[in-house]
Amino acid sequence: MKINPSPSFSIDLTVESTLDRPALERIITDTEGVSALAEGAGSPFRFVVYARDDTHQEEIIQALEKTEGTQVLSADEITFRSHIGGKIETLNKMDLAAPGAMSIAYTPGVGRVCMSINEDVARADKLTIKNNMVAIVSDGTAVLGLGDIGPEAAMPVMEGKAMLFKGFGGVDAFPICLDTKDPEEIIKTVKLLAPTFGGINLEDISAPRCFEIEERLKAELDIPVFHDDQHGTAVVSLAALFNALKITGKKMEELKVIVNGVGAAGIACSKIFMEAGVQNIVGFDRTGAIYRGRTEKMNVAKDWFAEHTNPNNEQGTLSESMHGADLFLGVSAPGCITAEDVKNMAPDPIIFAMANPIPEIMPEEALPHARIMATGRSDYPNQINNVLCFPGIFKGALRCRSSGISEGMKVAAAHAIANLIPDDKLCEEYIIPSVFDEGVAEAVADAVERVAREEGLARDVIDDSTLYKLR
Amino acid sequence: MKINPSPSFSIDLTVESTLDRPALERIITDTEGVSALAEGAGSPFRFVVYARDDTHQEEIIQALEKTEGTQVLSADEITFRSHIGGKIETLNKMDLAAPGAMSIAYTPGVGRVCMSINEDVARADKLTIKNNMVAIVSDGTAVLGLGDIGPEAAMPVMEGKAMLFKGFGGVDAFPICLDTKDPEEIIKTVKLLAPTFGGINLEDISAPRCFEIEERLKAELDIPVFHDDQHGTAVVSLAALFNALKITGKKMEELKVIVNGVGAAGIACSKIFMEAGVQNIVGFDRTGAIYRGRTEKMNVAKDWFAEHTNPNNEQGTLSESMHGADLFLGVSAPGCITAEDVKNMAPDPIIFAMANPIPEIMPEEALPHARIMATGRSDYPNQINNVLCFPGIFKGALRCRSSGISEGMKVAAAHAIANLIPDDKLCEEYIIPSVFDEGVAEAVADAVERVAREEGLARDVIDDSTLYKLR
Repeated sequence: MKINPSPSFSIDLTVESTLDRPALERIITDTEGVSALAEGAGSPFRFVVYARDDTHQEEIIQALEKTEGTQVLSADEITFRSHIGGKIETLNKMDLAAPGAMSIAYTPGVGRVCMSINEDVARADKLTIKNNMVAIVSDGTAVLGLGDIGPEAAMPVMEGKAMLFKGFGGVDAFPICLDTKDPEEIIKTVKLLAPTFGGINLEDISAPRCFEIEERLKAELDIPVFHDDQHGTAVVSLAALFNALKITGKKMEELKVIVNGVGAAGIACSKIFMEAGVQNIVGFDRTGAIYRGRTEKMNVAKDWFAEHTNPNNEQGTLSESMHGADLFLGVSAPGCITAEDVKNMAPDPIIFAMANPIPEIMPEEALPHARIMATGRSDYPNQINNVLCFPGIFKGALRCRSSGISEGMKVAAAHAIANLIPDDKLCEEYIIPSVFDEGVAEAVADAVERVAREEGLARDVIDDSTLYKLR
Repeated sequence: MKINPSPSFSIDLTVESTLDRPALERIITDTEGVSALAEGAGSPFRFVVYARDDTHQEEIIQALEKTEGTQVLSADEITFRSHIGGKIETLNKMDLAAPGAMSIAYTPGVGRVCMSINEDVARADKLTIKNNMVAIVSDGTAVLGLGDIGPEAAMPVMEGKAMLFKGFGGVDAFPICLDTKDPEEIIKTVKLLAPTFGGINLEDISAPRCFEIEERLKAELDIPVFHDDQHGTAVVSLAALFNALKITGKKMEELKVIVNGVGAAGIACSKIFMEAGVQNIVGFDRTGAIYRGRTEKMNVAKDWFAEHTNPNNEQGTLSESMHGADLFLGVSAPGCITAEDVKNMAPDPIIFAMANPIPEIMPEEALPHARIMATGRSDYPNQINNVLCFPGIFKGALRCRSSGISEGMKVAAAHAIANLIPDDKLCEEYIIPSVFDEGVAEAVADAVERVAREEGLARDVIDDSTLYKLR
């Protein structure tokens, strides 16, 4: 598959040349670079150019350099330049130079606030950053598709995640990468950190360790704990499925679902689908189908999976099981299925091919045969992106001081996401909102908060104003 | 001692009245409230009023309420109102809505940055928030003068500290309050958190536990670890002493110093004074003088103190030891010494009375007899405030990726602070800069960085531009 130039491989060029701008643009275009921004009426010119990869970046620079009368004054790799110094910072909500501010924000005024919390610890939810602050906790063992790269190398992803929390949900989040892979140490550490945070978002922790860590923390902490790789993916996939069924008229109970990849995300998607009524799921890993009686390369999570899915105990290949399937959900690797597999599915096949950045099958191959196609990519319709879920989930949970994030809250979030697309807009190419659609996080937060109240998980007993209103 | 009204007890009043503004101001002034801000030409009027305490706040409100034709529409307690939602937030350094930003800050672009750090972990210092982020770690056991109030109640102080880091040094800092008092657990947790942070500021951890925690972390981590309660106070006290000696002409070697309070701060001040040449220090705790042979209420730290101070092994009372002393340094409690004690000191007595908010002796009482007087208060000359030190110390250490903060770096910081006051401005009432003086953090940072380089602690081997400059 040919990869398109992308902003993730963009370069910022300053070029001195006797040529004019269109001539320089042509040189860039001839190398297949995409000129995204061009500034400067005369020399020196500035170009921001998208490339395919670092080799391609070098080709573009060299094409300019070998052009007569042309000199590349500077060429910055934009992704790396954007990371210098890290991607988030802390910000004071008060100006310390304002009259009295030092005595209010710090000593002696702060002491009274401390003693107020000491009297009733629930007030910390209102009077400290715990109010709106999530810890993004990782051990760096399962970062994107990169695997176990360690806590320092995982930081850029966790910082990016913190940006998404803030940018899409208005939720403050702080990345914490831990220098341990031991589940007990991770659990212990997160528990010790809990006084500071209103919620815990677990991130990129490898399976099956992530299951135990999440379960234990949910049981032992009184703040929301959410492993986004599992539940974020599950919620957004379920939202996409709700809308796909509206279009195809299929019913949850009658679906045959193939789940390729039974790691954290695959298992969580399967669980939430089953809660929504799906009865026939067949899971696959690299070894083949997950079935009762299989002994090779199993673990606790897969044992559970074998026990609760695959009602017909299918043991064949992925291609064999694709026959008659209604939905293929891939959280696995590029190119796992073929156009032929899609052809063999039941009428109106639905494909959620979410391997990143290259899906299990590209839309160009699948769409001649599939009715509905979704991927994890932003450059095709129907992007299944966790950003639709986690900022709103935490926003809603923090707003009502929910003690946790229940199955009901997750399903409500999925409905909220699905329902953001009005019936008259719903179509094969638009089953899931864009991350930039207005009001996504707010709609999810409202749904999550409503269910938290219905289920008795909400604990927002203190009205803010009672803490400072003397009249 | 009569306490003055303060912004830490300010109220924000909205008042409807048939009276005019001067008449309402008079009512406020009659209750001894200080009107700091008055807005509104006609009714309703707005007043910000400083009170002495919460009883006084109530008196002021009631005085207005019982005035004919006058109604208090609202009265907000400003300190508490300012704490709603916490005092710091996170901020994205890039706008995610800008073209390509999502692909640069998050997937797929971020993956390349991760792999670059995975290849060489030192790059994390440049490419992540580790670059400029300090953890403010506390267990809430010795918060201000409030004692062991727990991690949640300690948060407002740690958030305030984070504000000071950012506001005065441009250093990002994040408060971490831990749900444990066990030194081993604290040490372990901080070590596990280290991949995220460029430095560790320990705060409000009770003595003698703080000594072990700091020593162990300094030995076991390769980033700066600094217990501000000890060393911040010590550095700023030493700066004040440098300048006090310039004025009095006294010599370090000849001083007799009384240190009242031998907790974290008292011991650290004594140590740095001794490094600067002081030979005769006598320490006091609630039990009396610390001397070789004392057995009552000792601990490891006090044993060390007895061994290394008090050359004449004085065993009398504080008042007795004050005879002939040149410097009284108090990090203890209000009202510990009297004007009589000051009278008994050597000529040109120097008093650093740093108990907060009420010093060991008030300037009004001490100054008739003392040559130089400093306190921890902002409303008298010569405020010994750690804010003069810690933002610059970390700024300098982070800037050159110092592996630690050495004694030499601390002494250099003290000299830098002292030297901010030019000789022609130096006088009894101005031995220490104001926290709002220009360039304090920068001067401290420069001094700290210089010494870190001289001592071989600096490790800034990677030039930022090599990480993104293709040409």
